[in-house]
Amino acid sequence: MRLTIDKHLPTPVYKQIKDAIKEKILSGLLPAGFILPPERRLANINDVSRSTVIKAYDELKALGLVKAHRGKGTIVAEKTEPENPKKNKQVFPLSWHPLFEKKMHNISDTISDMINTENQREMISLAAGIGDPQLFPIQTLQTIQSDRVHHELFNFCAVEGYYPLREHLSQLMTLRNIVASAKEIMILSGSMQGIDFAARTFLSPGDAVIVEEPTFLQAIQRFKAAGAKIIGIPLDKQGLRTDILEAQLARYKPKFIYTIPSFHNPTGTVMSMERRLELLDLAYKFQVPILEDDPYGELNFTNDKPLPLHALDHYGYVIYLSTFSKVLFPGMRVGWVVAPEPILKKFAILKQISDLHVNTPAQVLLNRFLEDGHFEPHLNHIKPIYKARRDIMLSVLKQSEDATPLIVPEGGFYLWCKLPTSISQKELFALCAAKGVSYIPGHVFYPQQSDGEQFIRLNFTHESHQKIKKGTEILLESVSYLKSHGKHHPMKRESRPIV
Amino acid sequence: MRLTIDKHLPTPVYKQIKDAIKEKILSGLLPAGFILPPERRLANINDVSRSTVIKAYDELKALGLVKAHRGKGTIVAEKTEPENPKKNKQVFPLSWHPLFEKKMHNISDTISDMINTENQREMISLAAGIGDPQLFPIQTLQTIQSDRVHHELFNFCAVEGYYPLREHLSQLMTLRNIVASAKEIMILSGSMQGIDFAARTFLSPGDAVIVEEPTFLQAIQRFKAAGAKIIGIPLDKQGLRTDILEAQLARYKPKFIYTIPSFHNPTGTVMSMERRLELLDLAYKFQVPILEDDPYGELNFTNDKPLPLHALDHYGYVIYLSTFSKVLFPGMRVGWVVAPEPILKKFAILKQISDLHVNTPAQVLLNRFLEDGHFEPHLNHIKPIYKARRDIMLSVLKQSEDATPLIVPEGGFYLWCKLPTSISQKELFALCAAKGVSYIPGHVFYPQQSDGEQFIRLNFTHESHQKIKKGTEILLESVSYLKSHGKHHPMKRESRPIV
Repeated sequence: MRLTIDKHLPTPVYKQIKDAIKEKILSGLLPAGFILPPERRLANINDVSRSTVIKAYDELKALGLVKAHRGKGTIVAEKTEPENPKKNKQVFPLSWHPLFEKKMHNISDTISDMINTENQREMISLAAGIGDPQLFPIQTLQTIQSDRVHHELFNFCAVEGYYPLREHLSQLMTLRNIVASAKEIMILSGSMQGIDFAARTFLSPGDAVIVEEPTFLQAIQRFKAAGAKIIGIPLDKQGLRTDILEAQLARYKPKFIYTIPSFHNPTGTVMSMERRLELLDLAYKFQVPILEDDPYGELNFTNDKPLPLHALDHYGYVIYLSTFSKVLFPGMRVGWVVAPEPILKKFAILKQISDLHVNTPAQVLLNRFLEDGHFEPHLNHIKPIYKARRDIMLSVLKQSEDATPLIVPEGGFYLWCKLPTSISQKELFALCAAKGVSYIPGHVFYPQQSDGEQFIRLNFTHESHQKIKKGTEILLESVSYLKSHGKHHPMKRESRPIV
Repeated sequence: MRLTIDKHLPTPVYKQIKDAIKEKILSGLLPAGFILPPERRLANINDVSRSTVIKAYDELKALGLVKAHRGKGTIVAEKTEPENPKKNKQVFPLSWHPLFEKKMHNISDTISDMINTENQREMISLAAGIGDPQLFPIQTLQTIQSDRVHHELFNFCAVEGYYPLREHLSQLMTLRNIVASAKEIMILSGSMQGIDFAARTFLSPGDAVIVEEPTFLQAIQRFKAAGAKIIGIPLDKQGLRTDILEAQLARYKPKFIYTIPSFHNPTGTVMSMERRLELLDLAYKFQVPILEDDPYGELNFTNDKPLPLHALDHYGYVIYLSTFSKVLFPGMRVGWVVAPEPILKKFAILKQISDLHVNTPAQVLLNRFLEDGHFEPHLNHIKPIYKARRDIMLSVLKQSEDATPLIVPEGGFYLWCKLPTSISQKELFALCAAKGVSYIPGHVFYPQQSDGEQFIRLNFTHESHQKIKKGTEILLESVSYLKSHGKHHPMKRESRPIV
């Protein structure tokens, strides 16, 4: 509580304090029961001595305006006038749950624990969905940032994003064979916001949406929160099974198809060119938009950089999302969308009624990073390092058959591994956690979480070479231990007919 | 298109380029019709001479893989094998509008123009909803920022926000008489995100929500987007008319009450202590939560800093939102919510499925700003300046009766002024715009935009003293001109009964 005190006035300071508080009490600003700050604190805040405050409080007590309360300190006294009995009504605590929108019950917060795992320093995280912070180009940033602090950096920017950054992203897109002007690009708070906005733009409760199965877990959560019916289409080594897709498109008439075609999360799969063209043909045939999520496309470990669906689409069916979170800084929360005009208009409206625009300094910094030509050299720096980490993880995994990668991904962040059928995911997760290793159990990537019980996702980009080796070894030891010592988990007994 | 070229190889560079592109075409990576980069550009990207690229393109032409296309450049040729006639199907352009979620039609983007007005440098903006960028504490930031660029600054942070910032906000809250631990505070991407999350947490289509009338225009848009019934309660000089509120609570059973009790936007009103207590009593009686939006509460020009509703609420009915956007940097997009646990849990889930967490560097910077004790001195610096600007605007307005402030606000950002009834808002807005002055017409602050036609909102914090004076003078001249020269706008003719 800061009070207006003037030490040059003839009125003693303690009296000024007393009067100021008295006025606040009489005006009702400080209601009965309000706890005044402890004397020492009020003294510090107002730069007066503690004894001055004690004197002021004593005068207020003498006036009956405050009283000492054991355990609470000095509190504002009840008014002495007799209480109006009608006023003395009972207040019931608010029961929040019946007030919640019913779709809020569709989603749980089981994922937050996994996301927060990274904060536990001692753990080896094979669970992370991010790169290695040690590889962030901090030196470069320091150079960029040092002489560029100015007023506009902290001001509002346009809802659609900082225009120079949109221009540089337009140039970046040509390297992915996507031709899009700055006006066809909008900056988002991470590509997650693009998934959120697509859900808000298209999905009513009961609407269908097609996803790969497995897929990005927050996409599943977001579509569930919209009350959508989530139709999972399995993958094989060529990516999305377009043969299965066709029948589902006819049956469910989905609002859109959500896909991660390049270095898919969680499996690392790259959709083949043939499948990409088939997917587009099906989208055209059934008039269904495609939401293409491309956070990992630039992280190719061979010379084959996958061509985005957007680059192959000549009819404007693809909404393309990408982000700096996987290749540069997750903490910046800067992603973008390339989309046809009707979609960008809806997204701009949603931006205005959700968070107005993306943090300006982050946009200015990233723009400068692109403008000065740091982006490609940075990619060329990190890719061989991540490739070597993938290789060390693979070489450890090859030593047994206890966690077998389904494919060897040629880029991205993840290995998708199959466990022996006899292993309990819960037991393995607990055992690894006890030994200081985390990963993500496979079932969370499935719309129906009863699926995926036999899989786990391992990240090979977040930890150092040594820790990846050690973490993977601990994982294998744990699987091996559970195979011999774990509770026995036989196949479910067949049900006998009741006769 | 970056190609893998090794100048030390015996193969000539032009041939390496030719082979690389040939492979991409044959593998289907570059489909028919794909436009190759102009020669000069490809040469620059790959750091080779233009003539080398021309030679490579010529060879590709000779192979029939590409062809020159007037106006487009070099494009990938169709395959020469005869087309499968079944493949040659017609693709219809996607019709987006029928796919949109129906609630998306509830909101328009009329507000974006007004928000973007600030970007027009020549204009005097009395429309802005922000402070003066010249008053941003840039020097301080420079000092804070210079030696603190490190890896963690750009990493993920917890969904609920950077913990040290939550701790410092907990201390800041005690200065507003709100007792909340760091765990009861969550960081948001501006307080707008709190309004968005409240809408998502509570509102199903058809649900009622109570707002002051007029109120913050994006709140109206957000509640409309949720399909809610928006019940406006008028204000008087004491704030929200609690006498009217009671009947509406009984009638509409709203999901929550949205209020800006301190230096209200757009009117500048401060809700009296009596009304605050009545509002809380009604909330308790009808078991309705209150969403308290407090962006301006710290901007008091007298010694009376209004006490937030949250500080007066002993039963946990109030969800309290605040932000740094009005007092520090709008471009940072950092706000916060203080709320009971069930609400924070829902907000954390929503954060995960919308944008994960707030930009980390902004949180670290603001935390340091608070920690080093810069916040209160900054407030003490800007408040007298804003007060002086309010006074200059008032003194100009007093020279006529053409735009009369309804109240003299003792803080905040805005004067809410009444125009003569004969003036057309559209004509005035156009005339002022032509003369280089913008403001916000009153009707956008009303749930039913047919109301508020006689009012305008003037901001007195964004522009300099001189520009505020000049802008206000131009406004008055324009009103005066329209009174004498404008089209005549008589009161609507009474309808005659048809007999």
